Formats: sequence, structure tokens, C-alpha cells
Amino acid sequence: MSSVPLGVESVEKGSVPLLGVLISGRGSNLQGFVTAIDEGKLRAGIAVVISNVSDAGGLAIARGAGIESLVMPHRAHDSRDAYDRALVDALRERGVQLVCLAGFMRLLGPVFCGAFPSAVLNIHPSLLPSFPGTDAQRQAIDRGVKVSGATVHFVTTELDAGPIVSQRAVPVLDDDTPETLAARVLTVEHEIYAEAVERILWEPWHITGRRVVFGSRA
Amino acid sequence: MSSVPLGVESVEKGSVPLLGVLISGRGSNLQGFVTAIDEGKLRAGIAVVISNVSDAGGLAIARGAGIESLVMPHRAHDSRDAYDRALVDALRERGVQLVCLAGFMRLLGPVFCGAFPSAVLNIHPSLLPSFPGTDAQRQAIDRGVKVSGATVHFVTTELDAGPIVSQRAVPVLDDDTPETLAARVLTVEHEIYAEAVERILWEPWHITGRRVVFGSRA
Repeated sequence: MSSVPLGVESVEKGSVPLLGVLISGRGSNLQGFVTAIDEGKLRAGIAVVISNVSDAGGLAIARGAGIESLVMPHRAHDSRDAYDRALVDALRERGVQLVCLAGFMRLLGPVFCGAFPSAVLNIHPSLLPSFPGTDAQRQAIDRGVKVSGATVHFVTTELDAGPIVSQRAVPVLDDDTPETLAARVLTVEHEIYAEAVERILWEPWHITGRRVVFGSRA
Repeated sequence: MSSVPLGVESVEKGSVPLLGVLISGRGSNLQGFVTAIDEGKLRAGIAVVISNVSDAGGLAIARGAGIESLVMPHRAHDSRDAYDRALVDALRERGVQLVCLAGFMRLLGPVFCGAFPSAVLNIHPSLLPSFPGTDAQRQAIDRGVKVSGATVHFVTTELDAGPIVSQRAVPVLDDDTPETLAARVLTVEHEIYAEAVERILWEPWHITGRRVVFGSRA
């Protein structure tokens, strides 16, 4: 990964780059995007919201914002590859340039990642590489860290291990529970995710090794 | 580990708790302790500085501050246990209550850790559990994190895995090298290490699971 699939050159003058947002739940980071777009902080459109869960709360956010939404249950497909291909087709048909996972609880395989090289982002509620996987806030509390945070990263087929775009630290308090820590981290998620998408869309960047470097060409 | 071996009750009124500082190199965190003690921010004395390396730069800091220093090469001992016992004896003879590792490049075994339960601290130049072991800053750069930091933790026989006392985040810049990052982290090390020692000596705390919790009794 060292190409620049997005960035100012690849966005046609006068047009707006299109996001696809994948959700499984309440979609609070989807709401964060909608708000950032409304406020002019994120210069992008959301072409489609796709949920693998039919009653995901985030579908109402999409409807409320006039964004097309699709429910695509993974169980309707025979294999991960078949599901990945269906997702890719739906996103490509709508001209999506950057895919943003927002609480999407399915692992994406090589078919999906290969179709959108360096163009799938996710947010994780810890300072990766600490506490990958599920229940990151509980992991952080149990390990006794005093600082946790949130991470925006490119998605690769390796869980929570892709190149990191943005991180912000969050204090862990002595009386925190996983729930109180999660609430504090979520506020920061909303701040950094839209900001990171804006930067990936509009600033020059490249990937060197596992580092995402802004502000210069490779 | 759930005892409170130190803390206000165990420090005799009118006396000052005694630290032993173990070094292998320049001892910049030793200098941090000396400065914090001079400024009244760390209410402790340093009973002895022990180096396993005869030409460690930190020995000059000890001499300059009028602190007893010992050179105890580990190679002079047949086994880790024998070396650990020699260290324990030297520290106990001088009334040391809290041992602070400051760039001490030897793993301490069960003999040492058992002799000072919950009373050995170390500082590590990353936000543990990310990047344990050597060359933490290079690990951070190579992994491409945007936030790193420093961690003060209790020493156990498992490398860099003891309960965490204090952490502080440090930004990683796109043009950082391991050296520039290390310099930024070192400044924070000096801030949080003396502060953490002061808190461990003078505030109530307990360990629950792997969490160090201040401000209340177990």
C-alpha cells in the first residue's frame, strides 16, 4: 500500500467525494459524519449506508438525513467472499470512493479489501495496537491503563492492524467502568473520525511501511 | 498484590521514606528525582544508587548530589538469583523502602520481586501494553502510531507487564525519528516518574486485579 487512491487530484473539480458507511448498530459515528458534513467540516457526501443488521438504529439516522440505506444481511450469502462481493457491487454502483466502517461488526476479507485498496477506514475505541478486538474498553480497564483513546485506521484483512490515520488519547479514571470509559472515548471518536476522513479525502498523504504520512508525496 | 506496603501510615512521622535507584546508563530519571527532591515536589531521600555498569553516566549524578553509589556488576555473580540477593541485601542494609529502576537494563527475578512486593517501580517509554521491551520508540514509529507516551509501572517478573501507576500521552509527529520521539517522551518521563513516586509514597492506594487505584483503601 503506497498509492494515493484518493486525495485532491482524484476528486473531480466541483464534485464531492462519496462515502459509503457500513453499520451494524446505533451508528453514532454515522451521525458524526452527517453533522460534520452539515457544518462544512467534512467536504463529502454519503452515497449509501449499508447495515448487515435489519434493525440497526443507524438506519433511522440515514433515513432522517435523506441518505439511501440498504440492509444486506450476511446470512443471505453462502460465504464471506460472496457477501464481500455483494457489498463491493452495491458500493461501486453508487460511486463510493471511500468506505467508512462505523460499528460494522463483520470482518471484511480479501475480496472487499482488494476492491478498495487503502480506501476503507475504521474507528476503534482504544489506542491501537493496545486492545484490539471486541470489548476494548473493558480490556483497558482490566489491564489498568491510565490512558486509552481512539484510533482511526485503514482496514486490512488483519483485525485492527492496518495503518493508523489518527489517534487521540483519553484519560482513564480510577472509578471508570467500561461504560463510563466508552462514553468518554465515543466523544473523541466523533471528533477524530470525521476529521480523519476530511484529511484522507483532501490532503496529500502516502503510506510508508505501516505509517500514514500526511503533507507530502511519497 | 493487594497490600499497601508504603503510604502515609508506614512512613514514620518526621522521617523521610528512602528510595534505592538502579541504573545502567546516563540516569536522566535519577536526575529527575534529585531535582524533584530539591524542589520539594518529591518528599523522599535517595539512600543509594546502584549501577550494574561501572561507567554508567548516572554515577556522576549520584556523586554530584552526595548520594552513596555502588557498582555491582551482574557478571560477578553465578546466577540471577545470586545477583538478585546481593542487590536485595545492599538495598535492605540501607533501609530502602521503594526501589526505582531508572534505565536499569537487567531483568529482575522472583528473588528480587519477592523481597520488595509492590515496591519496585520502573518507567517505560511507551503507553504499555503497546511496545514492551527494548527500542519502544522505534517500535512505535514502525507501527505508525500517532500517540505514544510513557508509563510508570510496578515491576513484576513478567517484562513490562506489572500494574500501571501512571501514564501520559505524547504525540508522534509525521517526521519523527526514534531519536526525536525518544527526546519528547523523555521530558514526560521526568515529569511523571517523580510525581508517581510521590503519590505511591504519600497517598493511599491499592491494587485490584491489575489496576492501581488511588484515593481509597481496598
